[in-house]
Amino acid sequence: MATLQDIADKLGISKGTVSKALNGAPDISESLQKTVIDTAVEMGYRKIQRSGKSRRLCVLIQRMEYQAPGAFGYDLILGFRQMAEPAGYTVDVIPVTEGLQHSLSYDSFMLQYNYLGAFVLGFSLEDPWMKEFPSSHTPAVLYDNYVSANPCMAAIGIDNREGMELAVSHLKSLGHRKIGYLSHALDSHIMQVRLDAFLKTMKQQELSADLSDTGSSHYTSCCVEKHLPRLLSEKQATAIICSHDLIASAALVQCQQMGYRVPEDISIIGFDDLPICAYTSPPLTTVRQDRLQLGKSGYYALESLRNQVPIGTLLLHAELIVRNSTGPVKPVR
Amino acid sequence: MATLQDIADKLGISKGTVSKALNGAPDISESLQKTVIDTAVEMGYRKIQRSGKSRRLCVLIQRMEYQAPGAFGYDLILGFRQMAEPAGYTVDVIPVTEGLQHSLSYDSFMLQYNYLGAFVLGFSLEDPWMKEFPSSHTPAVLYDNYVSANPCMAAIGIDNREGMELAVSHLKSLGHRKIGYLSHALDSHIMQVRLDAFLKTMKQQELSADLSDTGSSHYTSCCVEKHLPRLLSEKQATAIICSHDLIASAALVQCQQMGYRVPEDISIIGFDDLPICAYTSPPLTTVRQDRLQLGKSGYYALESLRNQVPIGTLLLHAELIVRNSTGPVKPVR
Repeated sequence: MATLQDIADKLGISKGTVSKALNGAPDISESLQKTVIDTAVEMGYRKIQRSGKSRRLCVLIQRMEYQAPGAFGYDLILGFRQMAEPAGYTVDVIPVTEGLQHSLSYDSFMLQYNYLGAFVLGFSLEDPWMKEFPSSHTPAVLYDNYVSANPCMAAIGIDNREGMELAVSHLKSLGHRKIGYLSHALDSHIMQVRLDAFLKTMKQQELSADLSDTGSSHYTSCCVEKHLPRLLSEKQATAIICSHDLIASAALVQCQQMGYRVPEDISIIGFDDLPICAYTSPPLTTVRQDRLQLGKSGYYALESLRNQVPIGTLLLHAELIVRNSTGPVKPVR
Repeated sequence: MATLQDIADKLGISKGTVSKALNGAPDISESLQKTVIDTAVEMGYRKIQRSGKSRRLCVLIQRMEYQAPGAFGYDLILGFRQMAEPAGYTVDVIPVTEGLQHSLSYDSFMLQYNYLGAFVLGFSLEDPWMKEFPSSHTPAVLYDNYVSANPCMAAIGIDNREGMELAVSHLKSLGHRKIGYLSHALDSHIMQVRLDAFLKTMKQQELSADLSDTGSSHYTSCCVEKHLPRLLSEKQATAIICSHDLIASAALVQCQQMGYRVPEDISIIGFDDLPICAYTSPPLTTVRQDRLQLGKSGYYALESLRNQVPIGTLLLHAELIVRNSTGPVKPVR
């Protein structure tokens, strides 16, 4: 690992100046600081925490609500902090704009702000830092994302394959054979994983389904106004599984507006078990993600990476919460 | 959860007799003890550990050497014990015969011998207890096996898909295009996973491969005497990936006996990084499993299950150890 002296030698400046630049001393110009940080990252320099100094972790968050109880990210962050803070860490929550990602590399950002590791939430495959993660040096745990072959990176989430098996088995046991799938746009890892899990599970359970039995869009309105009617009329689906609860709750309302009763005519299943699921009409059957435990497990995985235990993937069991949006298939008249 | 009184009521005997039977008191007949244990298991009874009592875990092991350093299971068990014993557990290592599995159910065994959880090594898909695990109530962590949808069960291992990607990428970067695969018989979960990973990775890397480019057998001799010559002559493979190091080291010797040089004519890659890999001639390139860390992670997963953190899958990063059994593809003359 490179030392302060190595960086100083490479740049032809003193070790003291390197140290000041890395610690953001006010008498170092911004451009010199940037040069020093970029060089330090390039040379694989990592700060060593000395006892007595504060130890800092961050949650990097994109496209995810987290500021109120019930918001998707809230419990993830709470679980993470419930483990990290008693262990002596300070945890900062940082909404990461694309601008920030373009202006600084991930490793530079972490070094500049003195973070030892990150819990990364809500990144899409298009996020600039996602392209850096395969070769980054600073430990990160990615929720619902996956980076192969970098021992600094771990992936956590629920076992979506298992969740889909629970959903399809439940519908099959109720007599459903024609099942459609509605999804958010496939530009995120997790949406690709769930679609793949749907198609594989249907095949495994000997129910026919191909891409024409699915529909995806960035817009919930497009899912429920365009794809849902097509799945119900052309494909004669009697049940719809949705990639997450918000689409499921919109599909539920749309079915009712189209004159279908839920669950007598159409059964609907969501994913996530957001608090709203208990309050839709009828309450929504859904695949539960235990977000508090996911947050705690995220901390465990990050701490493992920092201690050279090369965790790559940690998946929690999925759980099907059966409420009233699913019922026996309607007998053919 | 059922209580001692519930069991006593069901059987029409006293609570004291139930307690004695569950604790193996000498004045209780064997047949009454069996009836009490079977009923307790059926009713979902679990012993509660009182402080001061010894807390016991077990390693259940089948078809795996473990009694000497260097044996495959040795480090797995060592890592598990290195975590469990300082935490106050006694760990028993129990070779599980098929006879034992037929004579007692898994839950009954665990209850009768007072074990709170198990680390399960080397089970094949044919093992009787594998059929019970989907509905068992006693926490278990399965190495290189997978049980879906039972929150008492977790799977641990390395990320075999990632390991296969590292192996294929390495060969591709050396110019290899025709790659064969030799495997132990496909009656274990892990052999199925690795074969599937081989075919998927080849496709992903735009190299052609189907089942005819692979060979599997219970017998290493059949793999290297029947399948290996076929892959080299009919399929013109210039590199062979093997499902584990023992087949790889046998394939290496067989290639040399057939007049091929390794790696000048044929490259060979194993899986596991057993200690022998450094001492074959030439030393074997292989995908490493960090067995000590896997053992430690096994303990972590079991402790999580016992604390209602529903870990389903925990995979460690794979690592490719490049030695001298792989080299650039031979130029076509």
